[in-house]
Amino acid sequence: MRTEGLSINLATVRQQWNLVEAVEACARHGITCVDPWRDQIAAVGLDTAVKAIKDNGMRVSGVCRGGMFPAADAAGRQAAIDDNKRAVDEAAALGADCLVLVVGGLPKGSRDIGAARQMVLDGIVALLPHARASKVPLAIEPLHPMYAGDRACVNTLKQALDMAGQLGDDVGVAIDVYHLWWDPDLEAQIARAGREKRILGYHICDWLVPTKDLLLDRGMPGDGVIDLPRIRGWIEKAGYKGPTEIEIFSAKDWWTRPGDEVLKTCIERYSATFSS
Amino acid sequence: MRTEGLSINLATVRQQWNLVEAVEACARHGITCVDPWRDQIAAVGLDTAVKAIKDNGMRVSGVCRGGMFPAADAAGRQAAIDDNKRAVDEAAALGADCLVLVVGGLPKGSRDIGAARQMVLDGIVALLPHARASKVPLAIEPLHPMYAGDRACVNTLKQALDMAGQLGDDVGVAIDVYHLWWDPDLEAQIARAGREKRILGYHICDWLVPTKDLLLDRGMPGDGVIDLPRIRGWIEKAGYKGPTEIEIFSAKDWWTRPGDEVLKTCIERYSATFSS
Repeated sequence: MRTEGLSINLATVRQQWNLVEAVEACARHGITCVDPWRDQIAAVGLDTAVKAIKDNGMRVSGVCRGGMFPAADAAGRQAAIDDNKRAVDEAAALGADCLVLVVGGLPKGSRDIGAARQMVLDGIVALLPHARASKVPLAIEPLHPMYAGDRACVNTLKQALDMAGQLGDDVGVAIDVYHLWWDPDLEAQIARAGREKRILGYHICDWLVPTKDLLLDRGMPGDGVIDLPRIRGWIEKAGYKGPTEIEIFSAKDWWTRPGDEVLKTCIERYSATFSS
Repeated sequence: MRTEGLSINLATVRQQWNLVEAVEACARHGITCVDPWRDQIAAVGLDTAVKAIKDNGMRVSGVCRGGMFPAADAAGRQAAIDDNKRAVDEAAALGADCLVLVVGGLPKGSRDIGAARQMVLDGIVALLPHARASKVPLAIEPLHPMYAGDRACVNTLKQALDMAGQLGDDVGVAIDVYHLWWDPDLEAQIARAGREKRILGYHICDWLVPTKDLLLDRGMPGDGVIDLPRIRGWIEKAGYKGPTEIEIFSAKDWWTRPGDEVLKTCIERYSATFSS
């Protein structure tokens, strides 16, 4: 079994443990990298979170999440930018590799996805000086098209890379196979992401057939239909050497199991994503 | 209120009426075009279906559905091709504008979406001579990426057009906004589809926020977040002059309402998708 290079996104055990408990559990299992969510940080307090990370010698592969830029009015958009600045500060305090951006969907009442995409671009432009000053790279995470309405209007790796290209060197992408596995253009875009040095994160879980809930029915790697070894090959070929993060939202399965069983299974399944 | 150019996909009233009843109801409401599903044809018998269509002077904008080509073994793939030939025969008997192809997802036990896509291509190649002889155009319908695993491994309009380009002049696409509205490349690909003369069908419904079921929670046009007038503008600019088909799967809402209410609402909402 292999733990080197494995990161646990702490959403995976959010129902079992708070941030401190989860970090300690990861350490017990030989896992040396995590990605906490902001509500998990807030629940224990930033200082306590920083201490738990340091005491356990954890790398922080990312902080989830910034983003959610589109809003119906200018005040709402400014509030989102301000909140993202606080997210940058938290990521900086934790020494995170990046702040993951789930960019946001359509503002309430809007059907203009083009306008929402522009709001995302404008929001990141406004956030960038603070992120640069704080040395926190921003990772745009393209989300599955089924979230285009309410969570993220950036839905393919090509779109995220095009956006990053407009923004500059401090912006990259988080590649989550759950969102992108279906894309016929994925291999080419992962290669491009490597060439353009944009890969800031690599997340895995699995697509279950059937999927019973749009948000909370993601699978443990190996339980679904995503060809994880093949996509890992593309990621390695693209030159990415960072952590592989397991992130699973699973209200009726993994969130109901003992946390130690979940972590043990993550380690087994992570090891199996290597084809050799 | 406008009914000219409106087609009702009979899945929209599948819980209320059989094919004959649905066709008669459409005629009562001044609707002159329908798209039946094969199970609805089978339930009344092909001859009865043909008679109902003729007696009511209906145009048939398509037959749903052929496809489902990928299978775990050669016998399964041949069975799919044979079944598609029968679907072509039914479409021909009904004088349908096209046979809509929901191409199929991954074969059971497979994670190789590239192989599944090749099986789709091979399946259509095998079907084409019979479709040509029967003068039934084949319409590849790209389905939303959330169906890539189990229903259709063709998930963008670009991919469908690329595939049609490999296959020849008798293959086109069915453009369903539910599946494609999120795609940042949609406007360009609709324009391309027009230039390449591939648009065989145009389907509308709406994307609800939240969407509570991956298959059976589609919205009535106007109740969701798709910018239908804008996409209609792209379709018109692409030169498409065929029917606009309303196709709604809605287990807990529209399928529970009286069929006449559903048709009346379809007519109202169809009229509203015209921006001028």
